[in-house]
Amino acid sequence: MNLDQRLEALGIVLPPAPRPIGNYVPGVVAGGLLFMSGVGPRHPDGTSITGKLGVDLDVEQGRAAARLVAINMLANIRAVLGSLERVDRVVKTLGMVNCAPDFGLQPKVIDGFSNVFVELFGEERGRGARSAVGMPALPSQIAVEVEMVLQVRG
Amino acid sequence: MNLDQRLEALGIVLPPAPRPIGNYVPGVVAGGLLFMSGVGPRHPDGTSITGKLGVDLDVEQGRAAARLVAINMLANIRAVLGSLERVDRVVKTLGMVNCAPDFGLQPKVIDGFSNVFVELFGEERGRGARSAVGMPALPSQIAVEVEMVLQVRG
Amino acid sequence: MNLDQRLEALGIVLPPAPRPIGNYVPGVVAGGLLFMSGVGPRHPDGTSITGKLGVDLDVEQGRAAARLVAINMLANIRAVLGSLERVDRVVKTLGMVNCAPDFGLQPKVIDGFSNVFVELFGEERGRGARSAVGMPALPSQIAVEVEMVLQVRG
Repeated sequence: MNLDQRLEALGIVLPPAPRPIGNYVPGVVAGGLLFMSGVGPRHPDGTSITGKLGVDLDVEQGRAAARLVAINMLANIRAVLGSLERVDRVVKTLGMVNCAPDFGLQPKVIDGFSNVFVELFGEERGRGARSAVGMPALPSQIAVEVEMVLQVRG
Repeated sequence: MNLDQRLEALGIVLPPAPRPIGNYVPGVVAGGLLFMSGVGPRHPDGTSITGKLGVDLDVEQGRAAARLVAINMLANIRAVLGSLERVDRVVKTLGMVNCAPDFGLQPKVIDGFSNVFVELFGEERGRGARSAVGMPALPSQIAVEVEMVLQVRG
Repeated sequence: MNLDQRLEALGIVLPPAPRPIGNYVPGVVAGGLLFMSGVGPRHPDGTSITGKLGVDLDVEQGRAAARLVAINMLANIRAVLGSLERVDRVVKTLGMVNCAPDFGLQPKVIDGFSNVFVELFGEERGRGARSAVGMPALPSQIAVEVEMVLQVRG
């Protein structure tokens, strides 16, 4: 199975990559590494999942938001590289969870993101280094934002 | 126009690079990438722009702070590399905005930083990947802190 | 003195590297760089130093937590690389301090981490670029979390 077939088997449909809102680009390749901009839980209709974990959203809702972030991230990676087949492996993920000061389950939330990459690329290539932390505020109060570094070829 | 002439055309005068306050260095080159330490909105007289966006500062004041961060960052990059001409391109920027929990315009604030790099290096080399996020507290309560990765040559 | 002897001279005993809690790995090497996952102030008995700086913990307690993070980080680096001798140099550290919104001494806290690396690897190899910032919440409310990038050989 190639990655397109695996996406289909996982029931994942990649949306068109949205334009960055601000003076930046979705990703840059340098020295064999792809540095991806922060991505949020944007629905195909342009709305996003907003709110704070521990206040407006529970952990399951946060995980669903993180999964949506992963799907948008894949769309952006494909747009930058031309094809997901150029991804060699996930290197590093920074998962940022908009949350209350007493919230402590950021890793459980961000697993919603990481699981998609492990399902798609497999344990060896899809599982990278990671930090999952709390944030007091994210752009337009999106619930989760993730940035990442990948190793690429070609 | 070389970069020094372009800086002058933009009306930007780089201050001397300040010493890091802590056990770190302003930047490290490894594998063709320059990893720059977090920089704040420090005036040449040593004082800094402090306060939280959405409480003490409005968006325009935040953008001005982010612009000042960019000028300090350029001073630090020049100090590390010897010359700005060694910058190949901006790779990744992490813009951190000291803000209230309900503030959501971090990208607008951090554009004040990114705009300087795009004006100086041009759209191709100056526009990189980016995340712009909210922080609850920064060192000495500076309003904005930015760290970045650049690709360098030589 | 090799690094093991230096560790002993510094009175540092590295604990076994704990398993990541979540769908990630402790570190990934790519392009000569080692990207390390976020690490917390975990005691050998599995408990961690928790609480917020400026509320539950003072600066000295925060520095002690950051020092413990460094010891855990070294244990993780050794587990990923096989030997600390493969570390070429510290490149970049992101020190995240769980703190109150009015706390401003993040660099003093994170020096507790950086000091260990400078003591062990020396000023040239052990002192890297760094940001030290405040966070509103960290996993399980640990007091300090640090992630880092190192240059490696072999």
